Amino acid sequence: MRWLVTGGAGFIGSHLVDRIVAAGHSVVVLDDFSSGRREFLLHHDEGGAVEVVVVDLRDLEATAPHFEGVDRVVHLAANPDIRLGTRVTDTDLQQGTVATYNVLESMRRHNVTDIAFASSSVVYGEDAPLPTPEDHGPCIPISLYGASKSAGEALIGAYVGTFGFRAWVFRFANIIGARGTHGVIYDFIHKLRATPGHLEVLGDGRQEKSYMLVEDCVDAMMHVMATTDLPYTLMNLGTEDTCSVRRIAEIVIDVVGAKANISYTGGSRGWAGDIPRARLAIERLVATGFVPSMASEEAVRTTAEVLLREIGGHDA
Amino acid sequence: MRWLVTGGAGFIGSHLVDRIVAAGHSVVVLDDFSSGRREFLLHHDEGGAVEVVVVDLRDLEATAPHFEGVDRVVHLAANPDIRLGTRVTDTDLQQGTVATYNVLESMRRHNVTDIAFASSSVVYGEDAPLPTPEDHGPCIPISLYGASKSAGEALIGAYVGTFGFRAWVFRFANIIGARGTHGVIYDFIHKLRATPGHLEVLGDGRQEKSYMLVEDCVDAMMHVMATTDLPYTLMNLGTEDTCSVRRIAEIVIDVVGAKANISYTGGSRGWAGDIPRARLAIERLVATGFVPSMASEEAVRTTAEVLLREIGGHDA
Repeated sequence: MRWLVTGGAGFIGSHLVDRIVAAGHSVVVLDDFSSGRREFLLHHDEGGAVEVVVVDLRDLEATAPHFEGVDRVVHLAANPDIRLGTRVTDTDLQQGTVATYNVLESMRRHNVTDIAFASSSVVYGEDAPLPTPEDHGPCIPISLYGASKSAGEALIGAYVGTFGFRAWVFRFANIIGARGTHGVIYDFIHKLRATPGHLEVLGDGRQEKSYMLVEDCVDAMMHVMATTDLPYTLMNLGTEDTCSVRRIAEIVIDVVGAKANISYTGGSRGWAGDIPRARLAIERLVATGFVPSMASEEAVRTTAEVLLREIGGHDA
Repeated sequence: MRWLVTGGAGFIGSHLVDRIVAAGHSVVVLDDFSSGRREFLLHHDEGGAVEVVVVDLRDLEATAPHFEGVDRVVHLAANPDIRLGTRVTDTDLQQGTVATYNVLESMRRHNVTDIAFASSSVVYGEDAPLPTPEDHGPCIPISLYGASKSAGEALIGAYVGTFGFRAWVFRFANIIGARGTHGVIYDFIHKLRATPGHLEVLGDGRQEKSYMLVEDCVDAMMHVMATTDLPYTLMNLGTEDTCSVRRIAEIVIDVVGAKANISYTGGSRGWAGDIPRARLAIERLVATGFVPSMASEEAVRTTAEVLLREIGGHDA
């Protein structure tokens, strides 16, 4: 089977490409390398199963031809920086919503009907019950990133309902692990390298969210796609517990081996549009027979260890 | 207070402008006259309370300046033809989602924070319980029009959560009445004028939806905006009952005074992406003290009578 993965050179995408290739399939990766990295896919250069195309998904005419002969699409490409939406307000509209439309339209033109989509827990907004089940409503995201994910889910629903597509929409918890290029653990390591004796934390540190290891995330995606067959499958991907930002700061300081004071900028949120507490109900996922290998705190520690090695390597 | 109404020369918009002016406010209308009509606002030419600007909301730089000095925005402009999305798939993305972003961004630039938005019952998709409450989830629209309304709701949530906006999001049932420029009653009258002895109905005629008179719709909007004050108010606007397409056909034939056979194209839907059955729960609306003046069937008959006069007038 020929897969197409947008954002396939990125953090989650490159792990997914590893799984797809391991399963014996070929992959065309579309990436604009704004946050993806060529080195994340270098280990596939020998095998010949992975084709990498540099393309801007905001450009439909440049994007569409690469969908010729594709059997299944996984659309992961997006602006990864949620906070950016507070400053450049059309980032998520263009790189999220419009890009998703262009992916769907490219599929329609080439009779490709199967798509998996990386949505996010942030579509639930901030008033959702915890843990949040997939059938929670209404979903009122409070960030432009979240709005673009809601828009993507809805566009996919339209292509399923109007053009006979089949879709898997995954609402991700915080996904962390090797090759991470952003996020709280990544930020903390960089801050501690700049000022080893001090770590400033955005908000009051009581923000508390679920973290899922990236390997578990891509394994779950592959498992769900292999075991479900509805026209539109909607599924949370996460872990059953949470980890506070305060605890993450302690773990990262411990892993880095620093003796650092922690200070807090205060307020319940890290930034405008941040959702302080998030935990996804994962009964649907577990019902498919998949159980994450690590809970949140173990995933955080594992990620801190691997990112410390990776970031050290980049700067050396 | 100075209001700005996008789509203010359209079917619902022009009725809303009537109410706003009657309440003693001034209004700037933004309309591209793709479906709006200058004649719907002619009766305001003398009063001086209504300013009409011809602008394409897809153009942010052309749109934004008109938000200077505005106190409240009602964003109604959209492609009114749901079926068009099946043929020209970026219509709703551009005229819906991108236009809504441009409205919100224009507001942010000019420190306007109050917005009311015309969403739709179609955001609920086709598996929702009937009557459908506002907290139903997940919402998976099956048309590109519905996707653009979901995207608009989410964008508004982002501006509320990130930039301190206050919003009223109204999910409309089928709104019908004077100045209607599209929809099933309008279509039936035109078909009967073309072939008086025969009426072809899309689908099996068992589609069954709620219909609300446009005067009730705009009265409800004004009432809810005057009586609620949350950062994000989400409210269904509809009637408690439904009317089948089969019954609408009978009523229109009766009002027109035709002796027509009815034939059905068959299938449960009028077109791909059509939702056969829709009825909104209106407990939230009723709890604000508003009760629609007409149920669905009375609204259908009233609309058939007034549209027959209007359409006759246009052709004469």
